[in-house]
Amino acid sequence: MSRVYERVALIGLGLIASSMAHAMRAQGLAGHIAGHAKTAESRQAALDIGFCDTVHSTAAEAVADADLVVLAVPVGAMGEVAAEIAPYLKPGCTVTDVGSVKGAVVEAVAPQVPQGVQFIPGHPMAGTEYSGPHSGFAALFRNRWWLLTPLEGTDPAALDRLRRLVEGLGAKVDTMEVAHHDLVVAVVSHAPHLIAYTMVGVADHMRRVSSSEIIQYSAAGFRDFTRIAASDPTMWRDVFLTNREAVLDILGRFNEELFMLQRAIRMGDGEQLHAYFTRTRAIRRGIIEAGQDTAAPDFGRVGDSVRKD
Amino acid sequence: MSRVYERVALIGLGLIASSMAHAMRAQGLAGHIAGHAKTAESRQAALDIGFCDTVHSTAAEAVADADLVVLAVPVGAMGEVAAEIAPYLKPGCTVTDVGSVKGAVVEAVAPQVPQGVQFIPGHPMAGTEYSGPHSGFAALFRNRWWLLTPLEGTDPAALDRLRRLVEGLGAKVDTMEVAHHDLVVAVVSHAPHLIAYTMVGVADHMRRVSSSEIIQYSAAGFRDFTRIAASDPTMWRDVFLTNREAVLDILGRFNEELFMLQRAIRMGDGEQLHAYFTRTRAIRRGIIEAGQDTAAPDFGRVGDSVRKD
Repeated sequence: MSRVYERVALIGLGLIASSMAHAMRAQGLAGHIAGHAKTAESRQAALDIGFCDTVHSTAAEAVADADLVVLAVPVGAMGEVAAEIAPYLKPGCTVTDVGSVKGAVVEAVAPQVPQGVQFIPGHPMAGTEYSGPHSGFAALFRNRWWLLTPLEGTDPAALDRLRRLVEGLGAKVDTMEVAHHDLVVAVVSHAPHLIAYTMVGVADHMRRVSSSEIIQYSAAGFRDFTRIAASDPTMWRDVFLTNREAVLDILGRFNEELFMLQRAIRMGDGEQLHAYFTRTRAIRRGIIEAGQDTAAPDFGRVGDSVRKD
Repeated sequence: MSRVYERVALIGLGLIASSMAHAMRAQGLAGHIAGHAKTAESRQAALDIGFCDTVHSTAAEAVADADLVVLAVPVGAMGEVAAEIAPYLKPGCTVTDVGSVKGAVVEAVAPQVPQGVQFIPGHPMAGTEYSGPHSGFAALFRNRWWLLTPLEGTDPAALDRLRRLVEGLGAKVDTMEVAHHDLVVAVVSHAPHLIAYTMVGVADHMRRVSSSEIIQYSAAGFRDFTRIAASDPTMWRDVFLTNREAVLDILGRFNEELFMLQRAIRMGDGEQLHAYFTRTRAIRRGIIEAGQDTAAPDFGRVGDSVRKD
């Protein structure tokens, strides 16, 4: 694949940024990859692993002369980083971000972006429960969605160029409105994460009662929850605080629904339970048909085990 | 491995029974495998796939002369099946079951078991979201726990023999009290399943609002939930109805915990959220250390993709 940007600056060097760098290298999408992370340890790791050409102790230095700047820090830190780099952005460059919430990021970043710079918010729908520069791998985005939420007045050529990069990373691109994005991800990602965190927290209380058994016998259901609940605490704190309204809306619906099922259990209403479980099973089939997962017993994750390629 | 039972009868030919049969064949643990399923279609499938030597249109016929009878039907059907086979059980034989709930099964089955027959309840902690005779594979139990809850007066030799079979299937065996078992599984399996069902149900309502997007963009969190929520509806209906008290206890704790986190989101209490998420992350590490899962990005399920071996 041919080069899309001459110089890319990654601000933040965690799972998403390091995976982008690995994939850009593998596909020859970027000429030079400059990186910045807050800790010297992460910057050194990026050099040692080799996914950055240069690392910089400030974000301002890292973005100098960059054609594309990727903000890959927790959502709560986006505004501060944007303010810091704004005076150093090259005219004509594009700034994007990889935050899981778009409304709050747009609010924090857009006002700081100077004229002549394109800000195109983005959200790669991919991740693992690992974080930090060592957790990245080139295949992370393969066949995953990468949502872009372009703002009014975005230059179509800049959008098209960013789209080419993202597709080069292996992702499928779609565009949607900022507010709509935040509602969709509240349902498919944010609320499920909070619920997994909660269930694992409950089990932790129980563990104190029944010793190490909870851990020892963690079967399929709970094991999946712990994997979800092991995601980066800072990232998820920011997600819930910044997508508050949509998440609280979904949790309200969840509570109503759970109470209904709890009541059916208490009343011994087997018919209601069976009908409900039959319906949810059909939804799973819809997901497999939509190609977001496979019917194979390894659940389509074998590709992810290629951490470097 | 050497033969443990001369003749084994499988009552019910779903995921668990068919996986047991595949593994018994692979390891030479049984001389003859007789099977019974309610539908002629499932019985024919067992013959076509080849994991039963004979199939029988009644459970009573299937258990004739069997040294081990495995009750592998939904928990709610155990009592009826036990009543039907009781007069036909060979003196000295062992009856076990594979239900996810033990208290209700013991209550329904134990009174029907004739003198001279050993009833040793069991629970293989393994499964996928698939069901039926085509879903079985020999590796299902490999390195999974198989809990046995022997009753007062169980013959140690009969228990030891059943343990040898189960270990031959690749599982790790532990024994515990009936009531304690039901509490442990309510935490690690039953409550997480109900919660996954609930979240998928909520998303289904939303889907009607935002068309097919929910399915299209189902990210990691939600995808795992749909897999859990795709499990067999009849099996799970029976689990919730028969392990009612323990499940309602855990759900009560879950509600309290979720409300606390919901409140933290509403109040913008980032510190509380961060502390909570950090704690749940540590639990995940405990599970990996306990060997119930691996740190590899394919989540240790690659072995499961060997459906026949």
